[in-house]
Amino acid sequence: MKNKQRPLILVTNDDGITAPGIRTLIKVMNQIGDVVVIAPDSPQSGKGHAITIDSILTCNPISIDEGDQLEYSCSGTPADCVKIAVNEVLNKKPDLCVSGINHGSNSSINVVYSGTMSAAVEAGIEGIPAIGFSLLDYSWNADFSVLENHIKNIALKVLNEGLPEGIVLNVNFPKVKTFEGIKVCRQAKANYVEKYDKRTNPHGKEYYWLTGELENLDKGEDTDEFVLEKNYISIVPVQFDLTAHHFIQKLNTWF
Amino acid sequence: MKNKQRPLILVTNDDGITAPGIRTLIKVMNQIGDVVVIAPDSPQSGKGHAITIDSILTCNPISIDEGDQLEYSCSGTPADCVKIAVNEVLNKKPDLCVSGINHGSNSSINVVYSGTMSAAVEAGIEGIPAIGFSLLDYSWNADFSVLENHIKNIALKVLNEGLPEGIVLNVNFPKVKTFEGIKVCRQAKANYVEKYDKRTNPHGKEYYWLTGELENLDKGEDTDEFVLEKNYISIVPVQFDLTAHHFIQKLNTWF
Repeated sequence: MKNKQRPLILVTNDDGITAPGIRTLIKVMNQIGDVVVIAPDSPQSGKGHAITIDSILTCNPISIDEGDQLEYSCSGTPADCVKIAVNEVLNKKPDLCVSGINHGSNSSINVVYSGTMSAAVEAGIEGIPAIGFSLLDYSWNADFSVLENHIKNIALKVLNEGLPEGIVLNVNFPKVKTFEGIKVCRQAKANYVEKYDKRTNPHGKEYYWLTGELENLDKGEDTDEFVLEKNYISIVPVQFDLTAHHFIQKLNTWF
Repeated sequence: MKNKQRPLILVTNDDGITAPGIRTLIKVMNQIGDVVVIAPDSPQSGKGHAITIDSILTCNPISIDEGDQLEYSCSGTPADCVKIAVNEVLNKKPDLCVSGINHGSNSSINVVYSGTMSAAVEAGIEGIPAIGFSLLDYSWNADFSVLENHIKNIALKVLNEGLPEGIVLNVNFPKVKTFEGIKVCRQAKANYVEKYDKRTNPHGKEYYWLTGELENLDKGEDTDEFVLEKNYISIVPVQFDLTAHHFIQKLNTWF
């Protein structure tokens, strides 16, 4: 760390350490802090909040491209990357953790399946202000450059204002060149309607590929899905106290 | 299905289809409904809400022990098991999904990492009333028999009363022979303090094992950790709208 005044920023993702999304995020974070990257050595999309209990982890220094960041490639999940960063590699809490930029949406129910957001949530659990960034473009060569200023501003805002305990931010960018602005939202109530593509392997045994489409039944104008559709950047504050507090009173009448 | 009047019950878990915990759960569910088991073919503890996107899935009929249940062994995660059950194997929504009985606690922050609870949450996302059951005993040969009546009663209560949309139940049993009763709770604010056990492989390269202990700083008497300590069964209503609604107003002043 070159300068004690600069914040220590942990960067991770779920698409793997070489993904263009995280390379953009590193570039932006280098402008505002001392950056340590600890990210998966392989794609980890859809890994949710998985952690590695039953097998070993490796975490080795690596140099991918130019910049002042220190980088480590980790064999684990996004949540593993945050845990090993805080408890073994840095051995201290960073001032900020940013995850992404994800190649694809983490709006609405995607937040539950998302490795990107689980890394941010894991940082939140460890008491670190955290943000997950995602672009609604699944292509490897998506144009992340138009996001840079917005990401810098949102990260600086969180560094300056802090976040309440137990809350992280889920930021999604629509796939456009110019954004209408930023909207603070709630998670839309949506779910995937799955279709399994059933095939037969060369040895005559059946197997499946999971496919599915997001079905959004929530027409609320205060939802992430709605504002993204209108070309706004969506920010949803996400919590990991999963208690449905409003149902406790009723449930107490059952037992 | 022998009797149209009987509810259709989907049973899954994260310890794998042969685990004693799920065998007990199947036995109890056979008493109250027509049971279909679709559970992982291997242990999936700590897999969180992971789903299988980048590789294939298999899901094959299997017969493990006696009973009226139909059983399928699936190569995927607990969340995969629920998705493939609803969208491919059953091709309809069951009346109830039960997950477990987990060998080990899913109280407090464990809910985030838990494959058992993620299966229940996945069922909830698909609009199915769902319950995750866990016993605070990690041993394979834990005594699940003392749980049977309680599980039957809780399942019947959910079948009769239903659950509000967007809510599933997280039920944990303390490791005792006699329970003090049932307490409806909130998720305690706790987190793991990790220690990485660093080793060197036979080829001279370093690797890690994740270890950690739960640190509970939440002294609230309305928490799952508190009541489990007092030998009560804890029931936390769990939601998957992760929006921190109470922070939206403040966050709107930022942008």
